[in-house]
Amino acid sequence: MSKLFKQVDVFTSEKFKGNPVAVFFNGETLSTEEMQAIANWTNLSETTFVLPATVPEADYQLRIFTTGRELPFAGHPTIGSCHAVLEAGLVRPRNGQVTQQCGAGLVQLLVDESSGNIKFKLPYYKHTTIDDEPLIEEVAESLGMQRDGIKSIVLVEDGPHWLTLELSSAQDVLNVTPNYGQIDKLSNNGFIGYSLFGQYPDGSYEARNLFIENSLGVEDPVCGSGAGADASLLAELYGFQGDLVIKQGRKLRRDGHISVTVKEQSNNDNRYSIYVGGNAITCVDGKW
Amino acid sequence: MSKLFKQVDVFTSEKFKGNPVAVFFNGETLSTEEMQAIANWTNLSETTFVLPATVPEADYQLRIFTTGRELPFAGHPTIGSCHAVLEAGLVRPRNGQVTQQCGAGLVQLLVDESSGNIKFKLPYYKHTTIDDEPLIEEVAESLGMQRDGIKSIVLVEDGPHWLTLELSSAQDVLNVTPNYGQIDKLSNNGFIGYSLFGQYPDGSYEARNLFIENSLGVEDPVCGSGAGADASLLAELYGFQGDLVIKQGRKLRRDGHISVTVKEQSNNDNRYSIYVGGNAITCVDGKW
Repeated sequence: MSKLFKQVDVFTSEKFKGNPVAVFFNGETLSTEEMQAIANWTNLSETTFVLPATVPEADYQLRIFTTGRELPFAGHPTIGSCHAVLEAGLVRPRNGQVTQQCGAGLVQLLVDESSGNIKFKLPYYKHTTIDDEPLIEEVAESLGMQRDGIKSIVLVEDGPHWLTLELSSAQDVLNVTPNYGQIDKLSNNGFIGYSLFGQYPDGSYEARNLFIENSLGVEDPVCGSGAGADASLLAELYGFQGDLVIKQGRKLRRDGHISVTVKEQSNNDNRYSIYVGGNAITCVDGKW
Repeated sequence: MSKLFKQVDVFTSEKFKGNPVAVFFNGETLSTEEMQAIANWTNLSETTFVLPATVPEADYQLRIFTTGRELPFAGHPTIGSCHAVLEAGLVRPRNGQVTQQCGAGLVQLLVDESSGNIKFKLPYYKHTTIDDEPLIEEVAESLGMQRDGIKSIVLVEDGPHWLTLELSSAQDVLNVTPNYGQIDKLSNNGFIGYSLFGQYPDGSYEARNLFIENSLGVEDPVCGSGAGADASLLAELYGFQGDLVIKQGRKLRRDGHISVTVKEQSNNDNRYSIYVGGNAITCVDGKW
């Protein structure tokens, strides 16, 4: 055991309150099958493997796995792994930036060394309007809620395909009781799960991300791509710009804080650029 | 971060093929609430905390948590944590034995230093016959199988309360497709989940343990108390004695091997003593 390992907590400054990612260094010593087996074993929503970059623009390469499959990109594993390579001294920010090579291409990360906040620009988002009322009724039923509790509903692809649902309030989000069997059936409509969010009286949001993994219902403790999907809905439907705070994890004994910035500017084909960020803290530091 | 941490793989000699347990040393620095929060965060079926023993007969004290609650005793966490304290040099076997203090009392562990095999004696078991045919029909339905595929069914309490089901073959065990919503409802009958097992043509067994945790369906990769429950059924119903091998985890990309020994001798109020054992290997070695 001479290769670095870190289990990093993301979207929190307080240990054990965020979303953990297991980061295995020297991923180049493993086959894809071995990486998948390890990610299945850690039982975390995501496990990453750090490898040397293969292009000069990148500081490191990252491969990201859920317990069941490889992802081209994911939010909290990216922030946690960037924190890990910085902490290990493997990488230093250049002008406050770090470039991660991953399945989705090169991802720019903005690193605020004083606060520890790390932000990524959502690579892209794509919206598909959902206007199939019987489907929306079924979605509401699968969440144990009434149809009229859904304020807006859009299929957002930003890596994962999230059926993104704005509910009437943060409390409504916390009250949701998912029927995962029904969610599993409905996911044949082209989404991997639900990204639910609703506003608190103070203007911040509460979010939850529910999906199926290996035939089992899973709730992600704090989800970066989900927060990006939520923010893109606020931007595209209501013209929201600026900063917002999305809290997540209260139903799972966590206290995640995601800071999102929305700017109106071209980001590939999108009208808005969306930056998703947060703090990260190493909880386990070791070797594998 | 100066306290030891190990993530140990149990019921395997090959890394990432068994059932992981996260072992946090110096548990005396944490409150019960903090332990529960950490166990929730690791997302493993069990997380343990090593503390100094409070009685002279014990070598160390162990507290065992699932993501949702504390357990008085559990099999794979006990074997993995014993492996961890031995590897860390915190404890040395005395005459091949280590004594663990835990919620269920003092547990004797037999350590074979040459093979690395660690066995515990099941503290007790209690059988309740299940003869409610409509319930058995519903149980079969919740497993996606026919009633006549169940060879025997007994409620076994050996710490957890397992509804223990012998199926017609190992293949039948692998073919089971659980409906966790239905299992959740049926568990009101006094069990936490199902311990399924069935025989291979070579005489060994395949097992699966299915339960509900935090309202979600969970399959335990390799389960010591489940194997103990299975063996107790074979002993009490058929008078089985001797050694048997229970394999587990194939549906979850693992390859667990549990070695069980059944001896006819008084073990508290039980006619048979049941020893459950296996190998363990440290996959992550660090600090927390």
